[in-house]
Amino acid sequence: MKKISLLGATGSIGRQTVDVVKQHPQHFKITAFAVGRNLDLAKQWVLDLKPELVSVQTKDDCELLKTEFGHLPTKFVHGMDGLVEVAVFADSDILVNAVIGSVGLYPTLKAIEAKKDIALANKETLVTAGHLVMEAANKHGVKLLPVDSEHSAIFQALQGENSKNIESLIITASGGSFRDRTREELKDVTVEQALNHPNWSMGAKITIDSATMMNKGLEVIEAHWLFNIPYEKIQVLLHKESIIHSMVQFHDSSVMAQLGTPDMRVPIQYALSYPDRIPHEAKRLDLSEIAKLHFNSMNFERYPCLRYAYEAGKTGGTLPTVLNAANEVAVEHFLNGKILFLEIEELIERTMESHQTIFQPDLETILEVDKEARSITQSFVK
Amino acid sequence: MKKISLLGATGSIGRQTVDVVKQHPQHFKITAFAVGRNLDLAKQWVLDLKPELVSVQTKDDCELLKTEFGHLPTKFVHGMDGLVEVAVFADSDILVNAVIGSVGLYPTLKAIEAKKDIALANKETLVTAGHLVMEAANKHGVKLLPVDSEHSAIFQALQGENSKNIESLIITASGGSFRDRTREELKDVTVEQALNHPNWSMGAKITIDSATMMNKGLEVIEAHWLFNIPYEKIQVLLHKESIIHSMVQFHDSSVMAQLGTPDMRVPIQYALSYPDRIPHEAKRLDLSEIAKLHFNSMNFERYPCLRYAYEAGKTGGTLPTVLNAANEVAVEHFLNGKILFLEIEELIERTMESHQTIFQPDLETILEVDKEARSITQSFVK
Repeated sequence: MKKISLLGATGSIGRQTVDVVKQHPQHFKITAFAVGRNLDLAKQWVLDLKPELVSVQTKDDCELLKTEFGHLPTKFVHGMDGLVEVAVFADSDILVNAVIGSVGLYPTLKAIEAKKDIALANKETLVTAGHLVMEAANKHGVKLLPVDSEHSAIFQALQGENSKNIESLIITASGGSFRDRTREELKDVTVEQALNHPNWSMGAKITIDSATMMNKGLEVIEAHWLFNIPYEKIQVLLHKESIIHSMVQFHDSSVMAQLGTPDMRVPIQYALSYPDRIPHEAKRLDLSEIAKLHFNSMNFERYPCLRYAYEAGKTGGTLPTVLNAANEVAVEHFLNGKILFLEIEELIERTMESHQTIFQPDLETILEVDKEARSITQSFVK
Repeated sequence: MKKISLLGATGSIGRQTVDVVKQHPQHFKITAFAVGRNLDLAKQWVLDLKPELVSVQTKDDCELLKTEFGHLPTKFVHGMDGLVEVAVFADSDILVNAVIGSVGLYPTLKAIEAKKDIALANKETLVTAGHLVMEAANKHGVKLLPVDSEHSAIFQALQGENSKNIESLIITASGGSFRDRTREELKDVTVEQALNHPNWSMGAKITIDSATMMNKGLEVIEAHWLFNIPYEKIQVLLHKESIIHSMVQFHDSSVMAQLGTPDMRVPIQYALSYPDRIPHEAKRLDLSEIAKLHFNSMNFERYPCLRYAYEAGKTGGTLPTVLNAANEVAVEHFLNGKILFLEIEELIERTMESHQTIFQPDLETILEVDKEARSITQSFVK
């Protein structure tokens, strides 16, 4: 029985994690979880999952839950302290970090210090502080298990392999909701159109990031840290069906790949069941039914956000933090209808240009730069 | 330094094995090899490879070599005894069995008894006597390393995995030289047309087997034994580009695959370098250049030889031996222009029908049935 702390329980990955856990009550139990503001779902899961500890975002919500569930043994906490309390909860073996945005960083570091293995869906954690997170993970001997389908594919392809034999990582990209549009045709796209991802059912932020290709950019940076591979050896390949989830090419020319129908529950479950696999009911891949898989080389002119991400990653220091912070603010403004789709990349570029990179930043510096970058991006929005 | 005994040195796989060895003199050395009748190449390799032991098919050829290379320390032997002497050669760590046909069986068993690991390109060994070979390999604790690209792909996909989690093996098939023809259009195909394989450069026998799909049938039986998987869990998928070399589907729905440009030297080298990988110069896979991969479900009406192979495999006993013997004779007659292409499958079917399967056969029975089946097939040719 693996006991799980889950951050971001009501988000897309969080809900699918709960689904996986419910399907395998003999293997998994969620002993602690944290949610943001979705109190209805939180209440349902207090009853369903019978956790020992639950954290919500605000004190008011916390008081509401305490009143409603006073008859239960569950402990209710709130805020960043609550998030950390869930992350380091003594009665859990693994932390599933599925919060959105850089708020996931601090609890991850605390969980690593508490020697919890980390199933990481929060890519901003590695993007903004990869050097600190990997250093801490190595120091405390904890495993970082990727939950993203791409990194999970690479991680699976590396099982039984020696990473010194890697020649390149090939991360596949569906191209997102606007893959068939030219840049000209992106000028007046709506939020609704952007949220319509062709293959994956995901949260709003990541769906927009897929459309701008920033999602792939963040994944490239994440892959760099997770697998300790230089950016020159990380390629992105357009593959619109999202069937090959990513690949590793070894120096003997062999390419190992993980394939499947797009279903996030599969990599989530793999991170939880690792190093074993347990049955999953996901739709089986039938390549004869799919008939064709398509591949295209990446176009950095069409997708400047990916270019920014490589730039930020290669430069290092605080620049990836700035990239990520600017992107978070810009996407939020786009989702709220305050800026146009193409202004997302413009805001990111301007914020990055205005930043003086600090190298080997400590956590405090990263958090400061993150805050600063957000207000700079904000200031660019009329 | 891995020391290698090589059977079938001048065949297609044999020559590519020599190529791999020559590229990695720091890793591999061929200390003993056996050839058939290609004396010119044998002579060249006596000089190039400086082996300690060489076997040829006939006594006359052996005498010729002894005379010509009397000044060298190389020992020359011949016939089945010679083949076995090379297979069990004390100064080799691994046997690469690349002979064609069921003649590969006996030396393989002897090498297993001598505790040599086996890199197996001779699929007839497992097809005709899978139960004996696997039993011997388990008993003597030797590894059977597949050299076929399909089995190597599956073997690679299984590294770091637990085979109890396998849901199915998916063996890909290019469809061979006649994949775009109907059965009607097969009536008067020539030997030359049949030998023109679209993807792989291979020997004549295996190229014809690819065109009839018997090659895939033999691979299904081989996979059954190598990976201890029931026939119901072995699928064949048409994939005309031969880029995905084969796949394993696990019970969590994940599919692991090995991909690459078609180059037999890669799986040969993997079998030799296993469990490590060493660099290979093979053309790198560029999926964006290939652009599309195609898949089709297998059609057992179009390819009856594959149906016969599943039948023979599922029945077991001596029936796979008969399938293989009949096929070897039939293909030889086709290559010699004595029968038509579609008569290959007719001869196999008739030979199988005339056979009373003997279950749990010992080696003697297998060799007898093999001989008997050959003369029955022979008798069907006018």
